[in-house]
Formats: sequence, structure tokens, C-alpha cells
Amino acid sequence: MISEPPVPQTSVLAVASHVGKQLSRLLLTDYLYSNVGNKIAVFVLQSLGCDVAALNTVQFSERATVLAPLTNTCNHTGYRQWKGTRVTAQEITDLWDGLKQSYLDRFDMMLSGYVPGAAAVEAVGNIAKELKEKSQAKPGSFFWVLDPVMGDNGKLYVADDVVPAYRGLVHLADLILPNQFEAELLSEVKITNFASLRTAIETLHSKFNLPHIVITSVSLPLSAQQATPDSSASSCTTMSVVGSTRTSTGKSRLFSITFPVFDAYFSGTGDMFAALMVVRMREAVASSCLKDKASWLSDDDVDALDLPLAKAAEKVLASMHEVLSRTCDAMQAELDAKHVEGPANEEGLSEEERAKKLHLLKSRAAELRLARNWGCLRGPTIEYRAVKLE
Amino acid sequence: MISEPPVPQTSVLAVASHVGKQLSRLLLTDYLYSNVGNKIAVFVLQSLGCDVAALNTVQFSERATVLAPLTNTCNHTGYRQWKGTRVTAQEITDLWDGLKQSYLDRFDMMLSGYVPGAAAVEAVGNIAKELKEKSQAKPGSFFWVLDPVMGDNGKLYVADDVVPAYRGLVHLADLILPNQFEAELLSEVKITNFASLRTAIETLHSKFNLPHIVITSVSLPLSAQQATPDSSASSCTTMSVVGSTRTSTGKSRLFSITFPVFDAYFSGTGDMFAALMVVRMREAVASSCLKDKASWLSDDDVDALDLPLAKAAEKVLASMHEVLSRTCDAMQAELDAKHVEGPANEEGLSEEERAKKLHLLKSRAAELRLARNWGCLRGPTIEYRAVKLE
Repeated sequence: MISEPPVPQTSVLAVASHVGKQLSRLLLTDYLYSNVGNKIAVFVLQSLGCDVAALNTVQFSERATVLAPLTNTCNHTGYRQWKGTRVTAQEITDLWDGLKQSYLDRFDMMLSGYVPGAAAVEAVGNIAKELKEKSQAKPGSFFWVLDPVMGDNGKLYVADDVVPAYRGLVHLADLILPNQFEAELLSEVKITNFASLRTAIETLHSKFNLPHIVITSVSLPLSAQQATPDSSASSCTTMSVVGSTRTSTGKSRLFSITFPVFDAYFSGTGDMFAALMVVRMREAVASSCLKDKASWLSDDDVDALDLPLAKAAEKVLASMHEVLSRTCDAMQAELDAKHVEGPANEEGLSEEERAKKLHLLKSRAAELRLARNWGCLRGPTIEYRAVKLE
Repeated sequence: MISEPPVPQTSVLAVASHVGKQLSRLLLTDYLYSNVGNKIAVFVLQSLGCDVAALNTVQFSERATVLAPLTNTCNHTGYRQWKGTRVTAQEITDLWDGLKQSYLDRFDMMLSGYVPGAAAVEAVGNIAKELKEKSQAKPGSFFWVLDPVMGDNGKLYVADDVVPAYRGLVHLADLILPNQFEAELLSEVKITNFASLRTAIETLHSKFNLPHIVITSVSLPLSAQQATPDSSASSCTTMSVVGSTRTSTGKSRLFSITFPVFDAYFSGTGDMFAALMVVRMREAVASSCLKDKASWLSDDDVDALDLPLAKAAEKVLASMHEVLSRTCDAMQAELDAKHVEGPANEEGLSEEERAKKLHLLKSRAAELRLARNWGCLRGPTIEYRAVKLE
């Protein structure tokens, strides 16, 4: 009755950090309500058939911000006035050693997301290095998808030394998923137009020998169609991802996919995107001989639009669009049903309490609707197609 | 393309404890590999369309047993020589207060599983009480599924004072899922034959006013067919669940479902069963007016076999059987592929190390295969039907 998972047996190590809170008398807690961080990635990966080992580390926020980590809708590191305790490299290394000691260290793929602190980033790099070395005898048997989370829109939200830490290990990755700002940080090329975008990507290919790159949020006009005055008037309502798989000589094969942007912020979209890319890349190469080639690199004669990376990105964006669209509708319904404005106007609240309550209720309404929209993850309808960039 | 979730919008609070380990320098960690405890319940609930808030507490085991909690296949509390730190009631209460302060305390259902310690059990009872009181104005709007985890096969694996703690709050539950031993502990009726089984269930209905009961592991011969000499020869290979929904006068309506037992132990089956019961009970009443009646209690003229509880249990056991069957196959394949015996016979290991390694590898092979068998959760084929017990 139900179709088989899109991927063959796939064991994924998912590494990320999320923000927790230290309550009095709590030694160790683990709870989730909002779909933040690795929880989203793990659910997406599992529900599409992957076996997942989640190597999560938790950062404490201070007591003053006790509520924010639960419900914040701003970027997961952008909590109002939090000062997190840095995750130590030792923690990550200890957890990894624990997996090894238990013989739980066979992985086909690794996905790494937000990891704060240079030493912790290096610890993640060391895991990738080990797994990569173990896979040497069997090309294509390990693939690292790295989301080099550092900042957005020109603003870092990690410590300064995280940037050189990523530059020092990004050559180990098979696919990276930076946003435009993170691509600039890694490539040291300022992206202002299509030419500089191409230069940035080619620099990433050549400088770090990076096989696959997807820049996840490009708001430049990329195609002739987009650049016309007519459509530029509404340019704020679309965005593009731009991807490339290098050739054997390090040349780029560029494609873009342009999609509409929703006028709302949902936390966890980056994690959903990354987890879906893991699944769809694996799916795209599973039935071809590419899966036995190092980094799943397509032959030089394969066109940009025929790259597994382009096929994967199309499916990923289709799922993203459907989930976000349904999340928007559900959020609107929740706001309309006065679950939010009503309670927030309850009597006896101070102005500050009212603002906080409203913020929390709106945050809840804006949570990604994943559990009820599994079909969008599993079998999305592709609407936005990859276009070749030349 | 993909069917809608089996349940309407359903918000579930899932409360359980699992066992963690304290590594050096680790303040707070959260990682999973094996499908233990609440992780299984959360995945099952989410993948069938529920929004889940997981209120997990973690118990530390001591350093000496650093590997066991990751991979143990024995009962989740039966780790080799662990001495856990008791989860405190305060922890649970603090987490619940955190949810309330964040306005994340609207729930349609609650599922509670393993909670060690009397005070912690009482803390869970207090949450149920609050949610139940809030739902008074709207009958049927809150439903508590309680798995009173205390022990099995005549052996307690919680502290003695947990038993009276459960006896003191079980009247708040809508559906309980004890195994045979736990049913004995709650009812104070020793179950040795069908007559005493009936007495135990009727006692639970009358003494605690319990609406719905499913005893999850009954190995008595229940039907005429089972009691014949022929089939009793193979009686060790089947087991039954026995359920009942009380009438308005406290009478039982008994049914049983008999199913084959696999010759292997898989951890987490109890959690999978409980999570599936949550989903299937909700599904069974969703389209009827029962959902607006307190505790979803069927009218007195409804026959045992027409109870939503019986319908739900049939689907749950169908899913269980399919997942366990596929897990068995996958485990056998892993054992046959010499992923286990080979590595365990590696040179240079002491006898003790070898035994430990073999244990860990076998444990890994015996993990429930959930992620790849989502279809078994979602659309199982019902093979084992409920039979009326009179």
C-alpha cells in the first residue's frame, strides 16, 4: 500500500547543537516542542527512511532567558539576549568516542549543522576525516553534507574564529550548503552580481576542491527573465538557490532554481533543507554507478541540468515549498482563530508580559508543520525547475 | 499522492524517562542511536501525524557502565549493573512549568511511559490532573494513555513505592496498558486463569473507575481453540492482548487478540505499542460523536468487538507484527552477513572484551527497524482479529 523509502539502507550521523536552558535542579534534560535544530533534521531523515544517529550537543542559555529557547522564531542562534555556554570540542569528541566504543560508527553519510565555536567545528571536522579515511578503500561509501552555519545577511552569529575553522576543513566536505553570506566568508569573494557569484563558486571548487556546492539564498537577478524591469518590481518575493558540481578539471557547472518566498519567518527551514538534500542526493545516485565514485562526481560530459545535485535540489525545493505553504496556512488559521490575540490581551498583564506572551504565541503559530505534512516530504510535486546558468 | 494522516490535528504530551550516561566534562548531552524509550514513541506519534511535545527526563547511569545504555537490548531498565540516579519529581514539574509559561500546554492527549520513582510518578499524575481539570468544560477533549511501567514476569524493576504511587493516581487515566504482572500489581488479583484475569480487569474497572484497559501480554489459554491439547503444544509461540471498555455500570466488555510471538527480544516494543494505541484510539473515535464524551466511553449496547478499543488494538497489533517481522529479517541478515561474529572474533581481544563486543553488535542488530518500515505503521494489514471473551 505504501511505497518504499526513496533511499536504500542509509545510515546517517547528524551532528548539531541546539540551545537548552538550565533549570534549577536539572542535571540533564531533553525536551522539545518547537521543531528546532537537529530535531527537524532527524525527523526528516528518519521519516524518509534513514537510520539516524543524532550527535546533539546542547548549549545552556542563562536563566534570565528561560522561556526564549523553547519558542523563539528568530534564527535559532538569535535568541533575545542569550549568552550561551560554548559547546566544547571535548563534548563532541567524547560522544563520538562513545559511538565508536559501541561499534556504532558505520555511516554512509554525515550531516553537520550549527556548531558554535572553532574548536567544536574542528572536532566535527575530525569525525569527518576519520569516516573519510575509513571509506578510502570503497569510493563513494561516505559522503559529508556540511551546512557551514556562520551568519546571514552580512552578520556573523558565531565567534570570529569559526570562519577560519571552517576554511581549514571545508575541503573534507562533499557538499556544502552555505547561504550567500557564508559563501562569501568561505570564498572571500563578495557576491554582488552574477559574475562575482560565479567567481565565488569557482573559488570554492578550486581552492577547497569542493565537489558539490549549493548556495541556499541568492537574491540577485540571475536569468534574463528575472532581470527584466517587470519582474524586478516583485523581486523581493522570489529567491534562488544556485548549485554546481565541479568537473574533473575544477570547472563549475552552474544551475539555479528560483522559487517564491513566503512573507514570514519560520525557524528550522535551513535544517529541513539540509536533511532533504542528504536524502535526495543519496536517492539521485543510488541506482547509478555514480554511487561507487568518490564524492559521487558526475563525468565531465554531464550537463548542469542533468547533475544529481540539480535533480536533488529540485525535489528538495518542492518539498520545502509545500511544507512552508501549509505552515503558512496553518499559522494564519491559528492567528485568525484568536488563539493568539485573545490570550495576549488577557487582563492583568503588564505591557512587557503582554508583549512576551504575544511573541510566544506567535512563535508557536509559526512552527513548521512537518508531522502532518509527511506527504510533502515524501512525494512533492516539482514546480520550480533548475535552469542552467552560463 | 500520499494519504492524509490517520488522525485529525492531535497534540500529544509524551512523558518518559530514558537512561543516559555521564561522560567527563559533559554537562548535558542528548544523543540517540538505538530506538530506546520516548524516542520511539515520539517518532511513531509524529510519523502518524501527531504534534508531539516530549517531556523527557534522563537518568544518569554511572561511568562504569558507559557503553551499556547506548545499545542494551534487555529491558530498558535492565541494564547490566547500572545504578541510575533517580529522576526527581522536581525535574518533571519544572519542565511542565516551562511549557506552561511558554503557553505550550494545550494537549489533546497524553502518553506516559517509564517514569522511575514514586515522586516522579506523582508529578506525572499531577500534570494529568491539571490537563483533565482544564478539559472539564469540554468532555472528551483530553485523554490520558498510561503505561504503568513497573516490572514484568513477576519481577519489579522500579522501587517498591512506585506501586502504591500508581495505585493512587491510576483513576485519572483513560486507558492503561499494563502487562500481566503490572495488572496484578494494580488490581491486587493474581492472574492464573481466565476467571482471575476477568476478576483483575473488573477490579480495575470498578476500583479505579478505569474506562479502558488493555493487558499487553497474556500467555494464558483464553479461547476454546487455544485450550485444545493440539494447540497448547505450541502455546509458547503465541500471546494475547486482552482489552475491555467498561459499561456505565462498571461491567467489563472483554476481547482478546492472539498473535504469534517472535523468538527474539527487541527493546522498545512497549513504547511502540503505546504510541500506536494513542494514534489508533484517536482515529477510532475521531469521526464519531464519541469524541465528545468523557473518556470516549461507548454506550452500553456496544458489543466488545465493536469497541473503538478493539478496533484500535487490531490495527496496533497489525503494525507491531509487521515491524517486528521485518526487524527479525533484517537482524538475521545482519547476523548472517558476519557483521557480528567476524568483528567479535577479532584478534587481541580478551574474553571479556569479546563477550562485550559480541553483545554490543548483537544489540545493534536487534534494533527495531522503524524508519524504513513506515508503511507498516501507517497502513498495516490486519491479520489477527479481536475475539469476544465471555
